[in-house]
Amino acid sequence: MSSYKVRTDLALEAKENMEENAEGCRGVSVEEEYDEEKEIKLTRVVIETKNGSRAMGKPIGTYVTLEAPAMALPDENYHEEISEELAKQLKAIIPGIDKELSVMVVGLGNRDVTADALGPNVVDNLTITRHMVREYGKAAYNQSRIHMISGLIPGVMAKTGMESQEIIRGVVEMTHPDVVIIIDALAARSTKRLNRTIQVTNTGIHPGSGVGNHRNAITEESLGVPVIAIGVPTVVDAATIVSDAFEKMLQLAGEEPLEVQDELFVGLGELYNMYVTGKDVDYEIKQISHIICNAINSALEI
Amino acid sequence: MSSYKVRTDLALEAKENMEENAEGCRGVSVEEEYDEEKEIKLTRVVIETKNGSRAMGKPIGTYVTLEAPAMALPDENYHEEISEELAKQLKAIIPGIDKELSVMVVGLGNRDVTADALGPNVVDNLTITRHMVREYGKAAYNQSRIHMISGLIPGVMAKTGMESQEIIRGVVEMTHPDVVIIIDALAARSTKRLNRTIQVTNTGIHPGSGVGNHRNAITEESLGVPVIAIGVPTVVDAATIVSDAFEKMLQLAGEEPLEVQDELFVGLGELYNMYVTGKDVDYEIKQISHIICNAINSALEI
Amino acid sequence: MSSYKVRTDLALEAKENMEENAEGCRGVSVEEEYDEEKEIKLTRVVIETKNGSRAMGKPIGTYVTLEAPAMALPDENYHEEISEELAKQLKAIIPGIDKELSVMVVGLGNRDVTADALGPNVVDNLTITRHMVREYGKAAYNQSRIHMISGLIPGVMAKTGMESQEIIRGVVEMTHPDVVIIIDALAARSTKRLNRTIQVTNTGIHPGSGVGNHRNAITEESLGVPVIAIGVPTVVDAATIVSDAFEKMLQLAGEEPLEVQDELFVGLGELYNMYVTGKDVDYEIKQISHIICNAINSALEI
Amino acid sequence: MSSYKVRTDLALEAKENMEENAEGCRGVSVEEEYDEEKEIKLTRVVIETKNGSRAMGKPIGTYVTLEAPAMALPDENYHEEISEELAKQLKAIIPGIDKELSVMVVGLGNRDVTADALGPNVVDNLTITRHMVREYGKAAYNQSRIHMISGLIPGVMAKTGMESQEIIRGVVEMTHPDVVIIIDALAARSTKRLNRTIQVTNTGIHPGSGVGNHRNAITEESLGVPVIAIGVPTVVDAATIVSDAFEKMLQLAGEEPLEVQDELFVGLGELYNMYVTGKDVDYEIKQISHIICNAINSALEI
Repeated sequence: MSSYKVRTDLALEAKENMEENAEGCRGVSVEEEYDEEKEIKLTRVVIETKNGSRAMGKPIGTYVTLEAPAMALPDENYHEEISEELAKQLKAIIPGIDKELSVMVVGLGNRDVTADALGPNVVDNLTITRHMVREYGKAAYNQSRIHMISGLIPGVMAKTGMESQEIIRGVVEMTHPDVVIIIDALAARSTKRLNRTIQVTNTGIHPGSGVGNHRNAITEESLGVPVIAIGVPTVVDAATIVSDAFEKMLQLAGEEPLEVQDELFVGLGELYNMYVTGKDVDYEIKQISHIICNAINSALEI
Repeated sequence: MSSYKVRTDLALEAKENMEENAEGCRGVSVEEEYDEEKEIKLTRVVIETKNGSRAMGKPIGTYVTLEAPAMALPDENYHEEISEELAKQLKAIIPGIDKELSVMVVGLGNRDVTADALGPNVVDNLTITRHMVREYGKAAYNQSRIHMISGLIPGVMAKTGMESQEIIRGVVEMTHPDVVIIIDALAARSTKRLNRTIQVTNTGIHPGSGVGNHRNAITEESLGVPVIAIGVPTVVDAATIVSDAFEKMLQLAGEEPLEVQDELFVGLGELYNMYVTGKDVDYEIKQISHIICNAINSALEI
Repeated sequence: MSSYKVRTDLALEAKENMEENAEGCRGVSVEEEYDEEKEIKLTRVVIETKNGSRAMGKPIGTYVTLEAPAMALPDENYHEEISEELAKQLKAIIPGIDKELSVMVVGLGNRDVTADALGPNVVDNLTITRHMVREYGKAAYNQSRIHMISGLIPGVMAKTGMESQEIIRGVVEMTHPDVVIIIDALAARSTKRLNRTIQVTNTGIHPGSGVGNHRNAITEESLGVPVIAIGVPTVVDAATIVSDAFEKMLQLAGEEPLEVQDELFVGLGELYNMYVTGKDVDYEIKQISHIICNAINSALEI
Repeated sequence: MSSYKVRTDLALEAKENMEENAEGCRGVSVEEEYDEEKEIKLTRVVIETKNGSRAMGKPIGTYVTLEAPAMALPDENYHEEISEELAKQLKAIIPGIDKELSVMVVGLGNRDVTADALGPNVVDNLTITRHMVREYGKAAYNQSRIHMISGLIPGVMAKTGMESQEIIRGVVEMTHPDVVIIIDALAARSTKRLNRTIQVTNTGIHPGSGVGNHRNAITEESLGVPVIAIGVPTVVDAATIVSDAFEKMLQLAGEEPLEVQDELFVGLGELYNMYVTGKDVDYEIKQISHIICNAINSALEI
């Protein structure tokens, strides 16, 4: 209906979108699960066919979304429960995790912009083992089996002059991990999902995703190894917020779309490259980084 | 017209507002000056009477605004010109600057939120002299006259549990500066002013101003010494952006305000405590911090 | 013996010093306790008389030292045990903790120097309640009793131009806490204590202590309220290291002090204002900050 | 003489060492130049033969050292002069700089350890052009000729699990720069050179250099393109400081080396992985980062 293309990095929102606007969809399976006690909602969207992919505007693959309203609020015990649930989902989606793996964890984003610093924060605090295992063997950890974990924070194009994909590909070709896990801050469609949703997918990162500019795909196809992406919506496009408010207003008014609407969306141009965050973004990003970091540490313990 | 109260920390915008909505205003004088070569526009708004104050929604005093479109773009020579202009304005507004002063420079805001870190960044990089003068006398600087400069970064209430005003007042009472200069990140009404406008005023900081929550006034009245405030709009309230887009749409449509409008503004509630910034906010804040820091250093050199 | 005055902020080291050099000491009581399972050693030094104070070079009061060799190594469960032990000691030493208190926690030090950032790190991550209790009452926390906790990071004199004491006193007089808890990075005499020792004392902070320059005492006498200081040795004076190596050499050689020794210590002057840290200082400071932060949070929970 | 191997990353110090201990050296040419007005001393050591390389303990190549006593003190005009001199030296040593180059600037070191953050700081503030030139052509800069500049901050092995060399090699193979410039914090032998010396060499980075652990060589041989290294001594090994103090003492005493000396040096083991920095390390690193950043920007302007 609207000429302004609403963009979302969340399969969950793509699905809701589709349901609102269209007839349902073959090639896409959806399972939901709600843990009342823990107040965690899990949604598993599997896009199985090219048709489903077209309808959803997302590649074929699995998208698990974990929603928890209090994710960014202060409550350490609750955070542990979310971490555990996320670890469980990671274990289920990382291929070959029952064997010894070499895993590279990549934190996308700009560490100097609070809402975009999620990826760097996670990798900064991760347990890194690759160098120890290579130097001292497994003995370094008193374990018979251990994953070799490395971490990379490529930085953003404005500061490196390079695509994140170029950097990651180069390092992957030099160090040969079996799987890459990427953490990124996403753009959501609605403020109500900000900092309370984590999406895990085995489809990697696609052009136009994320808070910053990661224009080249970071996927199994481009890197040559499976890519698990963990994304959290930390911002909403400013233009999306205005656009959504319009839709709501028109529904309330019960009116036909105004004639001027198209013209108006042109006016949204000044909102290009602007985004919306909450005032507690620093605290919330810190909490969620902690949750994801613990979940990866836990999933990769043998 | 709108039931949603548009909030701005800029006297410039308050004036534009007033001009749009009303009949002009006694008790407020406005002077503009444009330096074509330097592309710097200076606006001096002086609110002289209580009537003027009421009409503008701002206290009696002087508000100088310096607008420069390329303020946050990379061009060091240009930044020096803006710094010099700002230094000139500061010298004109700081009372007693021709004598030796004790000046406390305060950086408001949250250093962990990029758009709100302007104040802390400026104070972090300032030339501080008070401790040297107290320990070694002016000889420390080989000068016959020197200002004693101190710096304070009080932090935000969510992290200190205290009002910025409480902290500043306490330190002022203990160290007795002659004048306080406060730097703060402001909320603007329009994205077009973000990171390209600097406001200097001798009225201090008032409730509800700024990106964070500085609920108690930081003014000559509350501190007992003159307070010069330097503010830069670095964010726009998310609700303001939506509200403004509406107004524009209705004007384009030539329609009467829709009935639903009031209802709708209630819907904006979810945007409470949300704000809009640009994607290069880290780079831009760094540039402007540098400009203000240099301007204060230069204004306080004897 | 040596003309170079060995400086230590740890009562534990002052005591060892004394025992080596002298005859034992009236007016100082010492209790030790070792938890074999937790590998935590507690030493409680109580200086009871002026004689004891003179002999130790420390003010009258209680000094509890908690030594744990793996304090800064990666082991979250172990860190929890240390946190709990520290919380227990804090509860024992904070006067009036069984009543509702207003507690100001102060993080001394320079957040831009890794080894000196301990205090700021702790306060940055603390649970702060004062503003919530003042705004919403205890209802904000669903509790019948709650401490009002505030946090202050005064910064260092080179960056503020003010003594930490001036800033803290000002804020104390404005906000009237019942007790002040101060966290500071200390200088130890020996590298073997670095980042594995926590000292808690009810005597506050004294001139010449700490990594930075806090030249004025921050004590109950100067602030008017009890001051509990939590200190961790994170650096060793470079001159101390050289001096200690000499002593060791002379002992090994079984020689009389060389004639040149005094001259030589003059040569140590170039080491003035230099200090020694370990290569993992960033990781270790992060771990210990976390331990202390959790301990304070736990001690101040009602 | 001493059984403790003194380590220095500065060719200048290696040369001084050699002169003290030995007979002079063929295969090494040394030129000195002193600009009295600017108080900048330039030393150009060229190691021309294998013999020279062995004697110096450094690879064949050119080492230019720029010494300026006030490098880290506050004086912006002076810093500009040092920047200009450094830019001149860089232009002379970067091969092919008169043509259009693709230059990758790499900041080694740990951004969370103040003394080791020099490299990351420089790259964080550099003018990066590669992405703009690739997207918009030279038109983006209104210039007929421009270098494509990219920046990389690989991080340290403890946090990445990878050798810096692996990361850099991977990115070089993917993005094909014509030359790599590496900035690193070095260990000096003497505190008197700390933060007042810059070394530029065309021999890259060698095992054991630097504050952190960069164990694999980062050189033209390992990367396949010329590698210019810019190094600044920001720390002294703690063991070196003690060892040097001994030598001095023995000279003063006019004694033969004590018998116990070897035993004693074993005792220095506890100083392994400890280093010495000054108390103003944060301020000094910031100043020098600024100088190097400006010099690179200036050298790479066409």
